[in-house]
Amino acid sequence: MTNRDSSGLPMLQPIGRIATPFRTLADCPRNGRQLDPAPVCEVTVFEAFVPGLGSLESFSHLILIYGLHAGRPGELVFTPPFDDQPRGVFATRAPWRPNPLGLAVVAFDGFAAPDRLKVRYLDCLDRTPLLDIKPYLPSTDCIPEATMGWLAKHRTR
Amino acid sequence: MTNRDSSGLPMLQPIGRIATPFRTLADCPRNGRQLDPAPVCEVTVFEAFVPGLGSLESFSHLILIYGLHAGRPGELVFTPPFDDQPRGVFATRAPWRPNPLGLAVVAFDGFAAPDRLKVRYLDCLDRTPLLDIKPYLPSTDCIPEATMGWLAKHRTR
Repeated sequence: MTNRDSSGLPMLQPIGRIATPFRTLADCPRNGRQLDPAPVCEVTVFEAFVPGLGSLESFSHLILIYGLHAGRPGELVFTPPFDDQPRGVFATRAPWRPNPLGLAVVAFDGFAAPDRLKVRYLDCLDRTPLLDIKPYLPSTDCIPEATMGWLAKHRTR
Repeated sequence: MTNRDSSGLPMLQPIGRIATPFRTLADCPRNGRQLDPAPVCEVTVFEAFVPGLGSLESFSHLILIYGLHAGRPGELVFTPPFDDQPRGVFATRAPWRPNPLGLAVVAFDGFAAPDRLKVRYLDCLDRTPLLDIKPYLPSTDCIPEATMGWLAKHRTR
């Protein structure tokens, strides 16, 4: 099922599609927690991948990885719209990145259908291609004491 | 800098390489928190991408996304080695996935050189290709109350 290119890196394939209320980048909130209440979004998993959803129902939160299909290519350093200093792209969650992979920790509100998940806390565009679903594990993924660097003063929640 | 294939999905490029003590899949711990103390690993960022590291120094934790270059292709349902029930791949953190993208939340122990980051809590193979670095933000990424589903009884920490 997996193909690799000549550099040994995986060739990506969409496993589903994410529906959100955000039709343009200007519609997207700064992060998935900014809107209160956060809209419930639907993630449709393509039929071929539905068997991979078994045992997912018992997790309260998931990590979604998706393709940032509207990202602009390239600058490694830029001044974020809500800041006044140039920042390296890897110190930001901006959607334009050398590898346009997006990531969100979402609340999993159960299945709307066997191939459709209800989730909250997305900030990506409508029709974003889904690449992976992973269970969120507080034992490895939760760091309450983490410091937010230059983003601390812009914290929205 | 970013290329896309005909489906609109990003073509991945390595931005660096991850060095760990784990030379084979059998060497890899079950997760990055299993070894105590966790070994300090080095992440080398290729020269072209080093400018993107600006402002990273003030974050205590990072999210690394990497290519699972030794993953085996394909089964969507399998019985994990430490469990006795078949599980859907998306309810696991197993390295064989439809899109072989790995993810780790790591402690960032600073720079060993301008292009080399010291990090802890990796469980991936030595020489894993790095795809992205994102700042870890407790405001969006930390869910202490998340439930671990079928993995709860296998929790290592």
